[in-house]
Amino acid sequence: MDPRALGEFGLIEAIRRRAARDTRGSSPWRVAIGDDAAVLTPRAGEELVLTTDALVEDVHFRWRSSDPRRVGHKALAVNLSDVSAMGARPVGCLLTLALPSGLAATRLEGFLSGFLSLARASRCPLVGGDVVRARQFSATVTAIGAVARGRALLRSAARPGERVFVTGTLGGAAAGLARLERGRLRTPLDRRLARRQQAPEPRLAAGAALVEARLSRAAIDISDGLAQDLGHLCEESGVGARIALETVPVMRGATLAQALTGGEDYELLFTAKKSAPSAAVLGQRLGCRVSEIGVITARPGLVITRSGRPVQMSTKGFQHFKASPKGSEK
Amino acid sequence: MDPRALGEFGLIEAIRRRAARDTRGSSPWRVAIGDDAAVLTPRAGEELVLTTDALVEDVHFRWRSSDPRRVGHKALAVNLSDVSAMGARPVGCLLTLALPSGLAATRLEGFLSGFLSLARASRCPLVGGDVVRARQFSATVTAIGAVARGRALLRSAARPGERVFVTGTLGGAAAGLARLERGRLRTPLDRRLARRQQAPEPRLAAGAALVEARLSRAAIDISDGLAQDLGHLCEESGVGARIALETVPVMRGATLAQALTGGEDYELLFTAKKSAPSAAVLGQRLGCRVSEIGVITARPGLVITRSGRPVQMSTKGFQHFKASPKGSEK
Repeated sequence: MDPRALGEFGLIEAIRRRAARDTRGSSPWRVAIGDDAAVLTPRAGEELVLTTDALVEDVHFRWRSSDPRRVGHKALAVNLSDVSAMGARPVGCLLTLALPSGLAATRLEGFLSGFLSLARASRCPLVGGDVVRARQFSATVTAIGAVARGRALLRSAARPGERVFVTGTLGGAAAGLARLERGRLRTPLDRRLARRQQAPEPRLAAGAALVEARLSRAAIDISDGLAQDLGHLCEESGVGARIALETVPVMRGATLAQALTGGEDYELLFTAKKSAPSAAVLGQRLGCRVSEIGVITARPGLVITRSGRPVQMSTKGFQHFKASPKGSEK
Repeated sequence: MDPRALGEFGLIEAIRRRAARDTRGSSPWRVAIGDDAAVLTPRAGEELVLTTDALVEDVHFRWRSSDPRRVGHKALAVNLSDVSAMGARPVGCLLTLALPSGLAATRLEGFLSGFLSLARASRCPLVGGDVVRARQFSATVTAIGAVARGRALLRSAARPGERVFVTGTLGGAAAGLARLERGRLRTPLDRRLARRQQAPEPRLAAGAALVEARLSRAAIDISDGLAQDLGHLCEESGVGARIALETVPVMRGATLAQALTGGEDYELLFTAKKSAPSAAVLGQRLGCRVSEIGVITARPGLVITRSGRPVQMSTKGFQHFKASPKGSEK
């Protein structure tokens, strides 16, 4: 798949052929790739969620240390994570590719393989897009999801007294990035951590399961780090939170600091009523590990405790992270 | 609005504040900027159309010859043109900004002013997006529209015997680009042509009017040039077309060749039944000039006539254009 040989329309036609079989049958897409726009028939009683996220060469990833299929996978995965954090199921996606003239055909081919195979696995067909020339490769994805009317999980819906939960384990992506940057991928654990950074598996089913079982009203995906994303949620809800350090699920091979501030883990953080089931029971319902890490407070701000006592964490680190553009630390 | 001073979240917050007032009141957006995704409540009986198009620095425009407000206007306009070509009304948009670290604050400010002012004027509020670092500025927009169920204007719906119409006049954008590249903007006409290239006015109302009055089933917007876009429509419909050169509406200051192959005019091309009203009556209904330029044929291929006789146009030029990636000629 050489973009120079194919030209814009040839490339679009090649992508269209590969994506076409995903919108056959019971698809809600009346029109997919091939018109001025895609046409979606919404289901009665459902709302749509829309999110967009871009992956840029040398900012979010480096070709020389990345399998192109993982780059394609991640470009879609980070968007699916946002869809899931709204409690929605994926419905489809659009992809804009910015292609440098010297891009190797194998990289584009690998990228599309990884992208389309996650699209297929997550029932999120590619229904449109754009192809433009640029000096730097980037992939900008818009993902569309559907959720029962009025039931989307919102950042603004957390209430004082609610318990705070996270799925999976944290810090793995940051630990993987550190190993990748040091060029140190010797053990199976090293490679597992690198995969966590390069090919995250979004919690596709967990968000929708929370909505279906009416277990939660508020969620966010952890893309910027637990502390920061919990901060976003609290800010939008006008509340605060208290987190017990010893309950934060740190991935093997990662540090507690990486779990708190590392980012890119793409786990879900959600709140649930006081009367909600235990983390173990929630984990069974969601089909993944769930940890209870704290509680929402009426008083704004994030309090981190160890053995029940507030501890001072490196707020400087937090501020630096907060002020720096996304991806600058990568 | 200095991205370096504000950081990612500061910049997003600043954009959010400016866009917020556009989603108040009767907006179908339950949630706009500020969550993991925007939430849209579709109207009963309507389908949604989704399209995406990117504008890249030094590929689609040059800062030094562009008013940043026009760049912002155009980034949204080219997407609204696609929405209108589906017969839909705009509902909202998402914007991904790729920002070089050295980007002047006044350029970003101007870009956003132009973008948001067209968003407001066209009732297409900005409801989400992403901000990433890059070496080259680009703006990737996803626009969402709504149209009555089953009534979207499709490229694939043209039928033999239908008459072919275009809105407005053609060739102006190409003529404007030629003048911009020669640095020749002396007369009011020169400036008008340049504006046509840099700040196109999409036919916002025309597509929806065609659907409402059930005047058409098939349309496409003219972004790649009349000949090429008519070719796309014919290909998707499995038909051909015969066009009378003397009926093609050429903008003052442009050549016939520019009108046929120039691109970026963002007028609508549509077909209508044999029994449809005259171009003059259609023009009244759509609120703009409408010209009848030919007819759809059962036999595939584009036949161009002058005084009723087929003429050979530079097919070589057409092929070159067809094979070259979008924007490469700019």
